[in-house]
Amino acid sequence: MFEAAELGRKISREEFDALAPILRTELLELQFRLRGADFPVILVFAGVDGGGKNETANLLNEWMDPRWIVTRAYGAPSDEERERPYFWRYWRDLPPKGKMGVFLSSWYHAPVMHRAYGEITLPEMDEHLERIVHFEKTLADEGALILKFWMHLSKKAQKKRLEKLESDPLTAWQAGKTDWDHWRMYDQFKATAEHMIQRTDRGHAPWAVIEGTDSRYRAAEVLNTLKGAIARHLETRAAVRTATAATRDKPAALPEALARQPSILSSLDMTQGMDGATYERRLQEERGRLAALHRKAQEKGISTVMVYEGWDAAGKGGAIRRLTAALNARDVQVIPIAAPTEEERAQHYLWRFWRHLSRAGRVTVFDRSWYGRVLVERVEGFCPEEDWRRAYAEINDFEEQLVEHGTVLVKFWLHITPEEQLTRFETRDSIEYKRWKLTEEDWRNREKWPLYEAAVNDMVEKTSTRAAPWTLVEANNKAHARIKVLQTTCDALEARLGKKSKT
Amino acid sequence: MFEAAELGRKISREEFDALAPILRTELLELQFRLRGADFPVILVFAGVDGGGKNETANLLNEWMDPRWIVTRAYGAPSDEERERPYFWRYWRDLPPKGKMGVFLSSWYHAPVMHRAYGEITLPEMDEHLERIVHFEKTLADEGALILKFWMHLSKKAQKKRLEKLESDPLTAWQAGKTDWDHWRMYDQFKATAEHMIQRTDRGHAPWAVIEGTDSRYRAAEVLNTLKGAIARHLETRAAVRTATAATRDKPAALPEALARQPSILSSLDMTQGMDGATYERRLQEERGRLAALHRKAQEKGISTVMVYEGWDAAGKGGAIRRLTAALNARDVQVIPIAAPTEEERAQHYLWRFWRHLSRAGRVTVFDRSWYGRVLVERVEGFCPEEDWRRAYAEINDFEEQLVEHGTVLVKFWLHITPEEQLTRFETRDSIEYKRWKLTEEDWRNREKWPLYEAAVNDMVEKTSTRAAPWTLVEANNKAHARIKVLQTTCDALEARLGKKSKT
Repeated sequence: MFEAAELGRKISREEFDALAPILRTELLELQFRLRGADFPVILVFAGVDGGGKNETANLLNEWMDPRWIVTRAYGAPSDEERERPYFWRYWRDLPPKGKMGVFLSSWYHAPVMHRAYGEITLPEMDEHLERIVHFEKTLADEGALILKFWMHLSKKAQKKRLEKLESDPLTAWQAGKTDWDHWRMYDQFKATAEHMIQRTDRGHAPWAVIEGTDSRYRAAEVLNTLKGAIARHLETRAAVRTATAATRDKPAALPEALARQPSILSSLDMTQGMDGATYERRLQEERGRLAALHRKAQEKGISTVMVYEGWDAAGKGGAIRRLTAALNARDVQVIPIAAPTEEERAQHYLWRFWRHLSRAGRVTVFDRSWYGRVLVERVEGFCPEEDWRRAYAEINDFEEQLVEHGTVLVKFWLHITPEEQLTRFETRDSIEYKRWKLTEEDWRNREKWPLYEAAVNDMVEKTSTRAAPWTLVEANNKAHARIKVLQTTCDALEARLGKKSKT
Repeated sequence: MFEAAELGRKISREEFDALAPILRTELLELQFRLRGADFPVILVFAGVDGGGKNETANLLNEWMDPRWIVTRAYGAPSDEERERPYFWRYWRDLPPKGKMGVFLSSWYHAPVMHRAYGEITLPEMDEHLERIVHFEKTLADEGALILKFWMHLSKKAQKKRLEKLESDPLTAWQAGKTDWDHWRMYDQFKATAEHMIQRTDRGHAPWAVIEGTDSRYRAAEVLNTLKGAIARHLETRAAVRTATAATRDKPAALPEALARQPSILSSLDMTQGMDGATYERRLQEERGRLAALHRKAQEKGISTVMVYEGWDAAGKGGAIRRLTAALNARDVQVIPIAAPTEEERAQHYLWRFWRHLSRAGRVTVFDRSWYGRVLVERVEGFCPEEDWRRAYAEINDFEEQLVEHGTVLVKFWLHITPEEQLTRFETRDSIEYKRWKLTEEDWRNREKWPLYEAAVNDMVEKTSTRAAPWTLVEANNKAHARIKVLQTTCDALEARLGKKSKT
């Protein structure tokens, strides 16, 4: 794979000096156009030590306007990072739309290092690489332009480069013991890198292997590739936008024949009730249980993430309050999900959920969640059909990462019948201090019941996985619903605590 | 001080049950009104172990809508927190306008603990408390409602409380060894707390000492205080808004007699130049010096914060690029300050600068900065006069915290003459790919030159402190300006590295 990057390609100073001003101006103009675009640019610089990652990142910052570039490098994870899933640190650093993010020692660093040192097996590395492919795919699918550069040096060239760095007191620190150790491991690294590139070279996030020996050739090659890619992506995205706008329609009402098909919700036994005395007793029991289980989870650094979805007036707020009341307020964060903020809109739709993942041992309650994409956004036509169709897999991937990290994840759909909803709306309307809870939108949503029911059906079908199952809660009776939520949460914690802690 | 909190005040269950539904409804309604208000509510719960901090926070979350409450507690700082000034962790957790933040073991925890254990002297504690007063004052000045509750128990009552917690397996963890140790140190804690409360009890952030023995009395007292304070604050803020709107005027042009007074800028020697050969030589020298000094600073975990202010077209961008080019892009973050985002507007005006403070050993370049408040916001009348007048002290306090933390702080005003600015505007206007840099606003700002000059004069006068001096850069000649910026930065780093590192 690297043969083509050992050909000794070079550009003379004169040629470069002639090329530079043109390339520079073009890049600046593209950067200016990019600022108004609806996507970020993500650049990964990886490669052989001394291959020119830093130099190229520096040149980019010198030639382009550094105010619209975010450059990130990563050392060992901080404690705040270790307490979240692996990709959290990268999610939080993603550039917003219109900016460029340059990642040095990116998400590729750990798998390559661990494999070259023999600390993980090949299948383990492949699993990691598969995750990376998903990560990049989900970003690219929302429009991100992703380019990855592998700066290559032959073993001989690397030696020469390290010796040169060593000879200058200003750069000697760049050729330390580790760098020489890695040079001795050149062949392992080469084999690992080749495998890594093969596994992760995709159309939506291609690798370019760059011969790194000559700094002028390297710079010209990288920047020219970048220039072409940005220019093309600006065109493509504009075309996609136009096409989407033309074909985008609010989904039509379901044909009668489809609307009366049973959904998974129609299989629920909505007659379940609970008398007052039983409720009080069970509430005390389950709360005590939850408090004790949470305490244990906290000692082990196990976090809990709870998702509450459900019909308007299904009692999400009440169920949340009954549950959080059993815990110390300091350990719980309730995240109400409404319209995204401006900063959130400038990011991938999952970004605003990643940012709320808590440190170890805490409980995060999402009052509505990432499922908005396949519920309200689908039904109201807020995003194109291909976006919400793709979301099922993205959500499963996200939740899998939570569970793999050791987090307890519970998801509730609070179900009420249309008749019960009507009664509750009317009650709300009649009580002064509850009236604010009822909006015009609630009445409008109600008219779309069959569309929502179909969306809920698909959601459960596609995202109720073994790792992250949905719990459908019969919520016509509030007592029953609240106890079921509490009990399910306790059961999930208990099951998790039975296993050996990962964190 | 605590005698009045040992009177054995109690509320019977019957009285409480009668009171609760009324209080609850009122609090919910206030919370709803608060959501549309232009201020956050900040509650500090402190006090004797077992005095009811957690219980009260829990009750608040149970009675009010937990979606609009952020509850925070703090253990030992994470590494990410230790690498920034002490208050960073609290700034990042501040509730936005319309929400309520409940702080358990808040910024008061460390000074009280350290003093009670004799780890710091009384003057050291007082210095810390003075900082807290400033912190709360700056939040209150922008409208935050701050209430602090000290939950008190007599020594006897605390013992009883700990014994009760110990006797129930579900709560025994709340009466561990540390809690009993603290009980034995009751008198030290009491004396320390008394001193702390006296020093930090201010009109803008008052303490209420609450007798904590009876949980019903405690809850009623805290929630009733909260209710009254929110209701009053909603009225006051609305009145202030009306009054401000009425009196707010864009500042008038300066009278001729004042406009022609010399400002600090007129004392600069604007004839300074530098020939091309000298520039190239000096540029290489200073860049080499910067690279080496930065490397050393990085090893010691010393961060650098750079502030660039100056006239439009004074060459900030160029000076920044010349400087960052000497550093590894991975170590530098350039933060362009434009209009605040929606999330930033919902916070104190300094919040968006706090959030960008980097981890240890990095360089953060602010392209425009917090000085916008006393420059553009003052001149354009974007904030009331009392706000920008107050900002000088707030800024000095903020910068002092940076410097005390060990950060190297350099601040540049790039000065050009009006004639030079006109020439540069005309050049920009004539070159296709530079035209976007010139806006209508630049021309409008130019007409307000005397007002801006007066603002710059005041800014330098009030914020050029020994800890954080301004460097006025004669920038009619770009070469001279760039070298002066580089050299000043190097000198500051050198001076800092001479001292013993704090971090």
